[in-house]
Amino acid sequence: MASHRVGSLAERLITMHSFRNDYMEGAHPRVMDALVRTNAEQQIGYTEDPWCMKARTAIRRAIVDSDSKGALRKANIAGAALQVEFVCGGTMANLLCIGAALRPWECVIAAPDAHINVHETGAIEGTGHKVLTTNDADGVLTVQGIDAVMRAHEHGRNHHMVKPRMLYLSIATEFGAVFTAKQLSDLRSYADKNDLLIFIDGARLACGLASEECDLTLADVCAAADAFTVGGTKNGALFGEAIVIRNPAIQRDFKYYMKQRGAILAKGRLLGVQFATLFDTAGTAAGIEEAQGDEAMYFSMGRHSVEAAARLKDVLVRHGYDTFASNSSTNQLFLLLDNDTADDFIRAFDADLTARPDAAHTIVRMTCSWATTQSDIDEVDRMLAGATNEA
Amino acid sequence: MASHRVGSLAERLITMHSFRNDYMEGAHPRVMDALVRTNAEQQIGYTEDPWCMKARTAIRRAIVDSDSKGALRKANIAGAALQVEFVCGGTMANLLCIGAALRPWECVIAAPDAHINVHETGAIEGTGHKVLTTNDADGVLTVQGIDAVMRAHEHGRNHHMVKPRMLYLSIATEFGAVFTAKQLSDLRSYADKNDLLIFIDGARLACGLASEECDLTLADVCAAADAFTVGGTKNGALFGEAIVIRNPAIQRDFKYYMKQRGAILAKGRLLGVQFATLFDTAGTAAGIEEAQGDEAMYFSMGRHSVEAAARLKDVLVRHGYDTFASNSSTNQLFLLLDNDTADDFIRAFDADLTARPDAAHTIVRMTCSWATTQSDIDEVDRMLAGATNEA
Amino acid sequence: MASHRVGSLAERLITMHSFRNDYMEGAHPRVMDALVRTNAEQQIGYTEDPWCMKARTAIRRAIVDSDSKGALRKANIAGAALQVEFVCGGTMANLLCIGAALRPWECVIAAPDAHINVHETGAIEGTGHKVLTTNDADGVLTVQGIDAVMRAHEHGRNHHMVKPRMLYLSIATEFGAVFTAKQLSDLRSYADKNDLLIFIDGARLACGLASEECDLTLADVCAAADAFTVGGTKNGALFGEAIVIRNPAIQRDFKYYMKQRGAILAKGRLLGVQFATLFDTAGTAAGIEEAQGDEAMYFSMGRHSVEAAARLKDVLVRHGYDTFASNSSTNQLFLLLDNDTADDFIRAFDADLTARPDAAHTIVRMTCSWATTQSDIDEVDRMLAGATNEA
Amino acid sequence: MASHRVGSLAERLITMHSFRNDYMEGAHPRVMDALVRTNAEQQIGYTEDPWCMKARTAIRRAIVDSDSKGALRKANIAGAALQVEFVCGGTMANLLCIGAALRPWECVIAAPDAHINVHETGAIEGTGHKVLTTNDADGVLTVQGIDAVMRAHEHGRNHHMVKPRMLYLSIATEFGAVFTAKQLSDLRSYADKNDLLIFIDGARLACGLASEECDLTLADVCAAADAFTVGGTKNGALFGEAIVIRNPAIQRDFKYYMKQRGAILAKGRLLGVQFATLFDTAGTAAGIEEAQGDEAMYFSMGRHSVEAAARLKDVLVRHGYDTFASNSSTNQLFLLLDNDTADDFIRAFDADLTARPDAAHTIVRMTCSWATTQSDIDEVDRMLAGATNEA
Repeated sequence: MASHRVGSLAERLITMHSFRNDYMEGAHPRVMDALVRTNAEQQIGYTEDPWCMKARTAIRRAIVDSDSKGALRKANIAGAALQVEFVCGGTMANLLCIGAALRPWECVIAAPDAHINVHETGAIEGTGHKVLTTNDADGVLTVQGIDAVMRAHEHGRNHHMVKPRMLYLSIATEFGAVFTAKQLSDLRSYADKNDLLIFIDGARLACGLASEECDLTLADVCAAADAFTVGGTKNGALFGEAIVIRNPAIQRDFKYYMKQRGAILAKGRLLGVQFATLFDTAGTAAGIEEAQGDEAMYFSMGRHSVEAAARLKDVLVRHGYDTFASNSSTNQLFLLLDNDTADDFIRAFDADLTARPDAAHTIVRMTCSWATTQSDIDEVDRMLAGATNEA
Repeated sequence: MASHRVGSLAERLITMHSFRNDYMEGAHPRVMDALVRTNAEQQIGYTEDPWCMKARTAIRRAIVDSDSKGALRKANIAGAALQVEFVCGGTMANLLCIGAALRPWECVIAAPDAHINVHETGAIEGTGHKVLTTNDADGVLTVQGIDAVMRAHEHGRNHHMVKPRMLYLSIATEFGAVFTAKQLSDLRSYADKNDLLIFIDGARLACGLASEECDLTLADVCAAADAFTVGGTKNGALFGEAIVIRNPAIQRDFKYYMKQRGAILAKGRLLGVQFATLFDTAGTAAGIEEAQGDEAMYFSMGRHSVEAAARLKDVLVRHGYDTFASNSSTNQLFLLLDNDTADDFIRAFDADLTARPDAAHTIVRMTCSWATTQSDIDEVDRMLAGATNEA
Repeated sequence: MASHRVGSLAERLITMHSFRNDYMEGAHPRVMDALVRTNAEQQIGYTEDPWCMKARTAIRRAIVDSDSKGALRKANIAGAALQVEFVCGGTMANLLCIGAALRPWECVIAAPDAHINVHETGAIEGTGHKVLTTNDADGVLTVQGIDAVMRAHEHGRNHHMVKPRMLYLSIATEFGAVFTAKQLSDLRSYADKNDLLIFIDGARLACGLASEECDLTLADVCAAADAFTVGGTKNGALFGEAIVIRNPAIQRDFKYYMKQRGAILAKGRLLGVQFATLFDTAGTAAGIEEAQGDEAMYFSMGRHSVEAAARLKDVLVRHGYDTFASNSSTNQLFLLLDNDTADDFIRAFDADLTARPDAAHTIVRMTCSWATTQSDIDEVDRMLAGATNEA
Repeated sequence: MASHRVGSLAERLITMHSFRNDYMEGAHPRVMDALVRTNAEQQIGYTEDPWCMKARTAIRRAIVDSDSKGALRKANIAGAALQVEFVCGGTMANLLCIGAALRPWECVIAAPDAHINVHETGAIEGTGHKVLTTNDADGVLTVQGIDAVMRAHEHGRNHHMVKPRMLYLSIATEFGAVFTAKQLSDLRSYADKNDLLIFIDGARLACGLASEECDLTLADVCAAADAFTVGGTKNGALFGEAIVIRNPAIQRDFKYYMKQRGAILAKGRLLGVQFATLFDTAGTAAGIEEAQGDEAMYFSMGRHSVEAAARLKDVLVRHGYDTFASNSSTNQLFLLLDNDTADDFIRAFDADLTARPDAAHTIVRMTCSWATTQSDIDEVDRMLAGATNEA
């Protein structure tokens, strides 16, 4: 853990790129162009328009097309049987999927760091459902962790305790970790044996799938989940999350629940235009250099973000900042720093203060996105070099 | 009530302007430009950015500036004491304001046609609160109507009945009607005497204020309400509603409730940029011909919509379509037609089927907006003339 | 409508029987004896004890035994398939059955005077569900009334309106009216055609079944309902309502919901002992003179209450008090009186002020119960005679 | 930890006293007598009757009378300012007090073993509020434990995390532990400094106050809490819990919330009669030998239960069963036994299986109550002696 001061540089670099999070900018220019191009169109509201239909088709196709390309055996997903809806944000997507799936006394099991458990102001409890937590680290829900919770509630199967009914996991997790095909398959098996549903929060799904440690395809995620989300906000959209529902019981009347919760955008076409663009395969990935084949820009941007973070990590390690608080393989880096250095990083790079594990140390997060350029990373390199020289 | 058939023209006019509602298009070009112009900026999230701050200031100023220009005496509103927040849609704005203001057993009184009572899938009941309805017509809540409800609940003040605690009204109402300064003032007096709060749904506030029958200013609305909304979606924004809270008890911790309900947009700056533009007074109302003085385009667009509707009404009446189901003075016209003619209007003008009051008749809605041009109205004139000639 | 003053008698009669309602006393002595007799027993809690098992069996048997004795054809109810639970009060029973049956956006249709709509402080809305009301009088839900509501929500089947999913009716209704076998059968047919559930509030079920205008049996009620309650509080129990659930979808995990809502009594045996006594057929109806054959005292007490009310009505009419606000055929009488006379009745008989239909008149309720004796009624006769003589 | 088998005795002792819990019997005979004696009275409903008034007065007096008799300085509690209500059960009492006190996004902090966190089927979450847990053992909430939770939520004071607003603690705790005056005073100080409310679950308050390790009086509990409960169900009542509310903000409209939640008993007098009896000081403690001075039987019964448990503990330890899973000083003993012995205890004494801390061991609970006699304890002694002899 290095402790060079970089703070003295901060004043000069006020216009530097911010590494605070992956939703600092607006939309990827190509998404913005699509919104501008379609702006004057008159379209019917509430996501019933042709753009939303097109986006639904594109997402279904992306799922089906990726089937059998992953580590798991072909799931034979019927695209037409998938319900795809669009909402403005991630907390809404989470509470809708969980609230629509559970009866009042049922609850969801999650890792203690799960976004729904910590950073959504009790949105799930606000729908009346308890969040039970495992002891799992880095947000990576494990069969062992779940099983301990389930066993503690067996005695309570006599209705004095909540009834566990759903697993919540994120790909990538809050701490940038991912699941392998084996892990996800094991969770699904456990869930099936124990009458549990699985909901996967995909706010950072593109980065999760792009991780080298993740051998999952979109189809694998879909096959493992009863419902999952495809995050747009943190991957190039102006705003918006897609919700994919495979389980017919959750599909039933889902739009009623969306409307009741204030979740259906009047000009739904805005979400349709964006996701149709993100999942368009005719765009040669919108000039993103990391693009592979004819993939949709949604995936290319995820790859761009993850590779940028890998390069940023190299720079940090090279300068001696080599202690990380989590094993992230995606677009977020969680540096464990002494408090002074952390202050410098926060000031210099607009890094995000995540936690204070003890009195002397701070965890700061640096995040890359589709908008992070090589030049932004080079600037960090130069600054850290300068700081070292000064020190 | 005329019954000329206009249907035979429908096929030829497939690209004609739709009069279905006031959120068919995207954003006013000037709003869209602002979003494009600021797209690459990196801004902090969740409506804490400088654009949102600017938008808040602009809305507060618009309120304060209009004070004493209306029919009511100067309310001396302290702009700095107003909390202004931004959300994506109207149902969300309504349920947040009502849910944050009421304790579990308290309820809201509304006209039977109120949006919250009919068209929000029980969003208010979803927060746990009953909606009590008066017998008032056209959505225009009256003291007399409220008082009948209050008296019916006096006996129940012994806690076997819900406790009325808030009035809900819309400006303009669902049926295009407005309130006068006298009416609003009477409601406020009644509310004060009976410990009732007032929430005003301003999804179509710009059109309401622009109505010739409405002598209210934005300041009057603010002074009469404990909280109210300033609709963007239906008045030139890409999406978004501003919430203005005057009552400190509702302000307290309001953003916690927003977050819990999934209402805070991650890239909050999008809402800030839009409302800063809509309420910018340096724009000479963005070239909108109905603009007066240096008013913000928000007001000019409302005036444009209302004046367009007035011209459309002239055309309709001239062609014999002179029976209306409500006394609208704003941007919506509710035509009472025989069923066949209604079908033709729906097909030809994309008019909106609103209700079927009896077996032989249909009410259809034609709506004008900032995007409706004189040429769109002329086209209706030509079509109706042609239809008459054919008949 | 007579206007003799009876008030001058009030002071002398301070110890007179109260006709205010049917839960003024504790329990029927036989029920109290059973509680005393079993008081020292040690029993397992939460309604899992042998007394509750016995009570469940007795209620199931009462249902099955009455099958085909009523006006409707034999329903072939499988007693073993009925879930029977016990709670302390009626509002709790109602909210449990409705809340367990509906998904968040679904709602219940009821007559405007329905107890859930007026006198439960928004308990149903407190579970998140809207109560839609018909225009039906006296609490008697009709197919015509329901159909009007359903048609108004057809347009809304596109998820902008709540989804009607359940009918709520009371036997007897709030105003003492009942349903015939034909009426109930028609409601069931309509419900089946429209995917609606039926919940019957039986807080005064014993009196409803005892009405001469009601040709229903307990089995008919069970066959028509997805769930219904068997009121104990107002028919001789110390406290308690039985819930009978026929629909397996509502049965599933129902006790979880009971526990979550604080509805399971720790010493559940108290409810078991009472209902086992009320439905015991070996008691020759506990010496109640109106008892028929070997019927359980639950039914005999209902018959006693209704016959007492009929005799009371005769007395009232004989003395000129012959205007009633509802067509009650059960144990409650709703007298329409001028305000002065109403005051006298309230003072003299502890009659219950129900409503003030206009400035000059008051509706007062006089209620008979298992505890009302012929001597109590004779006393009313004497007092009214005296009042007339004085006048 | 002894491992003598006592199982072989089980068959012979089928009628032996059960030590499963403290609500196996009905009511203390004196309470039952009072219910029988008042059974024929006609009383107004919903806890507005004279018996409830009398009970409220008696509880207020018990609080005021104990002021300054405890370890804390005199709190000068104004009895008249205390609101006292009655409900049927503990889960209901808890959810009412917590739900009435919190706004939607606020949450309650509790020890992980807290009844509301584990054994109420998510009743608190069912009202929309999260339960945050500390790391405290035996249910004994500590300032240190709370402070760790508070610090973890400081960062979230920006409304992305729930807002801690209330402390929940039980006297006695789920594991039979108590709080000292010092501990409770420290919690109150911390709460005051951090704008936290305190709710004390007194389901076993009588036993808590009777503990030798507890130097608190009823007045101390009242002074420390914003609201607390006085459990009747587990201390001689047939059923029922009293709720005492000191904080005016929670008092406001509390009965509306009670009614909405189905918590007001129609024949409320039943609760009034019981609590008036339990807190009657003219009863020379109803012949309970542990009674002190003229104390109400409520306190004497608590003392009886705790002293019985102490004698039972002596017996157990004497026979070698000397390992306990918690430091209980009240009426419950938590024995840590090998699985075989645990099975024997469960069978022989109807002990309650509480948990399985590891594969080889079981924690069983033996509970004493007002109904446990010296002869019941002697019987355990004899059985264990016999078992030892056999072994």
